[in-house]
Amino acid sequence: MARNSFITSLLLTLTLILTIITPSSSHQPLALKHKPRFFDKFASSTNHSHSQSHQQPNIHYETRFFQQQLDHFSFTKSTKFPQRYLINTDSWVVGSGPIFLYCGNEGDIVWFAQNTGFVWEIAPRFGAMVVFPEHRYYGESVPFGSKEAAYKNASMLGYLNAAQALADFAVLITDLKHNFSARGCPVVLFGGSYGGMLAAWMRLKYPHIAIGALASSAPILEFEDIVPLETFYDIVSNGFKRESSTCFNYIKQSWDEIESKGQTSDGLENLTKTFNFCQKLKSTGDLFGWLESAYSYLAMVNYPYPSEFMKPLPGHPIKEVCRRIDGGPAGTSILERIYEGVNVYYNYTGEAKCFELDDDPHGLSGWDFQACTEMVMPMSCSKESSMYPPYEYNYSSFEEDCFKKYGVMPRPKWITTEFGGHDIHNVLKHFGSNIIFSNGLLDPWSGGSVLQDISESIVSLVTKEGAHHIDLRASTKNDPDWLVNQRATEVKLIQGWISDYYHDSQAVYEVKISSPLSKISSSLGNVSSNKCWCCVCM
Amino acid sequence: MARNSFITSLLLTLTLILTIITPSSSHQPLALKHKPRFFDKFASSTNHSHSQSHQQPNIHYETRFFQQQLDHFSFTKSTKFPQRYLINTDSWVVGSGPIFLYCGNEGDIVWFAQNTGFVWEIAPRFGAMVVFPEHRYYGESVPFGSKEAAYKNASMLGYLNAAQALADFAVLITDLKHNFSARGCPVVLFGGSYGGMLAAWMRLKYPHIAIGALASSAPILEFEDIVPLETFYDIVSNGFKRESSTCFNYIKQSWDEIESKGQTSDGLENLTKTFNFCQKLKSTGDLFGWLESAYSYLAMVNYPYPSEFMKPLPGHPIKEVCRRIDGGPAGTSILERIYEGVNVYYNYTGEAKCFELDDDPHGLSGWDFQACTEMVMPMSCSKESSMYPPYEYNYSSFEEDCFKKYGVMPRPKWITTEFGGHDIHNVLKHFGSNIIFSNGLLDPWSGGSVLQDISESIVSLVTKEGAHHIDLRASTKNDPDWLVNQRATEVKLIQGWISDYYHDSQAVYEVKISSPLSKISSSLGNVSSNKCWCCVCM
Repeated sequence: MARNSFITSLLLTLTLILTIITPSSSHQPLALKHKPRFFDKFASSTNHSHSQSHQQPNIHYETRFFQQQLDHFSFTKSTKFPQRYLINTDSWVVGSGPIFLYCGNEGDIVWFAQNTGFVWEIAPRFGAMVVFPEHRYYGESVPFGSKEAAYKNASMLGYLNAAQALADFAVLITDLKHNFSARGCPVVLFGGSYGGMLAAWMRLKYPHIAIGALASSAPILEFEDIVPLETFYDIVSNGFKRESSTCFNYIKQSWDEIESKGQTSDGLENLTKTFNFCQKLKSTGDLFGWLESAYSYLAMVNYPYPSEFMKPLPGHPIKEVCRRIDGGPAGTSILERIYEGVNVYYNYTGEAKCFELDDDPHGLSGWDFQACTEMVMPMSCSKESSMYPPYEYNYSSFEEDCFKKYGVMPRPKWITTEFGGHDIHNVLKHFGSNIIFSNGLLDPWSGGSVLQDISESIVSLVTKEGAHHIDLRASTKNDPDWLVNQRATEVKLIQGWISDYYHDSQAVYEVKISSPLSKISSSLGNVSSNKCWCCVCM
Repeated sequence: MARNSFITSLLLTLTLILTIITPSSSHQPLALKHKPRFFDKFASSTNHSHSQSHQQPNIHYETRFFQQQLDHFSFTKSTKFPQRYLINTDSWVVGSGPIFLYCGNEGDIVWFAQNTGFVWEIAPRFGAMVVFPEHRYYGESVPFGSKEAAYKNASMLGYLNAAQALADFAVLITDLKHNFSARGCPVVLFGGSYGGMLAAWMRLKYPHIAIGALASSAPILEFEDIVPLETFYDIVSNGFKRESSTCFNYIKQSWDEIESKGQTSDGLENLTKTFNFCQKLKSTGDLFGWLESAYSYLAMVNYPYPSEFMKPLPGHPIKEVCRRIDGGPAGTSILERIYEGVNVYYNYTGEAKCFELDDDPHGLSGWDFQACTEMVMPMSCSKESSMYPPYEYNYSSFEEDCFKKYGVMPRPKWITTEFGGHDIHNVLKHFGSNIIFSNGLLDPWSGGSVLQDISESIVSLVTKEGAHHIDLRASTKNDPDWLVNQRATEVKLIQGWISDYYHDSQAVYEVKISSPLSKISSSLGNVSSNKCWCCVCM
């Protein structure tokens, strides 16, 4: 169950992949105009994932709403909106236990809660309250009465940004602490993908609110020129190359093949048939986007075991894609091979009769607006090292596109101005503490995250075979050792933060163990089984 | 010259004194309805202070304007406003020298620049660029085309707050660094009073922008219940009591005297004459406010030598006030004594023919709006320990008053939610670095600041005889030893931050000494006279 839903959480952030890419000249093959996304809109509210998680025994919560300030940073008006949050106090050591807060990201918070088993599993061991606040403008936490109103235009959408979301968390926690007489209770932050970015930034911006953060697969450096612009697509490409250089080459060749096919009179019709689309392709660019998404998502969810986050997939899905691409009998065309390959991603169960294309024509997804305003993550595709059509990032056309859609000019330097990123190792070497940046190197977002320790307590946990925030998912009996160890290390570090906190504040705090832990301890590996994890007994 | 203007900068923050105080019952003597202010509106643009500072040889700058984002934290619109800043690059080691940035507070930045001689004096020794950006909504940095438009109502004024001001500084610095090819240049922040609060918060919120902050007389703990509500007025009172308990008692008795006089038929007329007001008093409350202000301002500018920040004053002005209060011949009434005393503050030169009362009836000062929204600093007056009329802080009436004036509800918990304050020693013990909180214990604001070291590099410099941010003023030949030593320590600490920065970033940086320093070095006392202050020579 939890095992099967393993991949789910990886794909959470999946959509971030996709690319401020626009064609830099008419000679260059068309590429996607998608904004980077962490989260596929189809994934958040399927009955499938909901019912799946209802089977998880550890996940129970109460749903509440908090009247949240729409604009924390002005006093022009005092509009409020209902912010949803999920809360569980079953294991909480009343008045002194820690508060585990997941920084909700760009989607329905229920779905995130259901796919972040790690937090639910470890909370009882810490005597912790669990809170999952929803990110503004997503799920049921929309201002102006309805999603339609909230998403109407930039005047309404403009308060959808990271700084406001962090302030939401800060205000909510402050209120909760007051209501629960929990002023002295340490808050530990969790987050994956964009949620991981929020968790790290929150620890840095609100050290008085939270004592530490586990920021899983958080590409806080994927801005401006901090990392090479080719990083993301190079990692995707290497994920294929390491399975098979033939496979990599077939994919690399396929774009020209599609492009030349597309230029013939019945080219788009033939491509529509070859790739089994329900409706006729309007351009080869749409096909490019469809393929590019599949490869990037596959790299993110390239988990070592079967998973079904948004789509059911086998373990090591890229291996399977390449097996199919390479495995066609002699005479199989490149495009037929490609089609067989991407079927792993789009139709592993074989249930799909044909494929729908969705290029989000109205640009109404919240993340699209975020990517068009502050989450400007420039990406290029290298002609040499990537398997994608070569593409050189073109900010002007990106800006033009965003202005057309929303009437706003992006602020591409805002995130680094507000949250930093440049020269992060020197900046944080003697500043801040208690952040874990966890990354799996198969995840293309890992290249934009922190992959080396910054200081004694701002640390990086890197797993060679990990993909997108696998550590936040529920444990399973089949977890590989490196994953068991990674989670155990995270638990130990968090335990250390909490112990230090209680020590510093001279608080007495004893965890009362309130739920059966045998399964959890076994999956957490070599973590001490002391009952009293965080106590400072005086 | 610099010596004579010594007090000027202390009084900068002076107005913060005054009090969210409103009467809690009709039996209680009336007290001021002023919001706490750091800065007296009469002080910012007098010809006097301008001409005075033009005589200071170290202070030269170019005045520039930056098109600044009005609202950093939404994308609803992209309104800009011209932010004024003063800049001097004369001594800057081009491309590698540090940038000294003064966090402009609630007033004309020219006036702050002229009264922050310390920064100008030490900059050449560090090869530093000096930048004084003006705080939004003050001086010439007003949005919407004019001060009238900007101050029209809360819809216009609403962007006047600390978070937006800090973001202004961050965006401006980022732009300056780009334009000066100075990306690797460390920024050191300076600020006094509210500007000191901004400097400390800026270092905490933007460690990637600035490597350290000297926060002088910055009462970042003067919120909610972090310090006892009586703190401020108790310190003022003790400033009088330590000079003379008789003086303290005369003042303490004077309120009832005024109150009973005021209840007689010609009472207000008689009080008007006794205190020599130009217009007839409308209430005893106005007189209370006038006196209360004088005492509080006197405590802030209780400097050891003559000064003229907003008003010319003798050295140790409280001593002089008490000398006059106590010194009246036998038979002098209490109110006559009080009048003689406050004349030291309001009319030391003897030039005033009569006194004007200004209680800011329209509430249009920027600080008044800030105090009515986020800068909610609750204060009470203890019946026992203060010389003021007893007053118990009453949030409800404060809130009501603000709502009437601006149509906004204050957010009294916002500052501590956004910037912290509670339990600051534990919060920052293992978080952050490179902040100096400097305070003089005569300054009533010192009680709301950080008076003990938090960590090895978040330190407190306390001077027993210091008043309101005296350390930021230009040095004089008559500076007492403790002040010389305090500044020397500050310089050494700043030097350490800069050295560490260059060391960490492996930069080569040699200061070229560009201006005559003999006077400065002598006033800086026992600081090393090495030419190469900040170099890491590799």
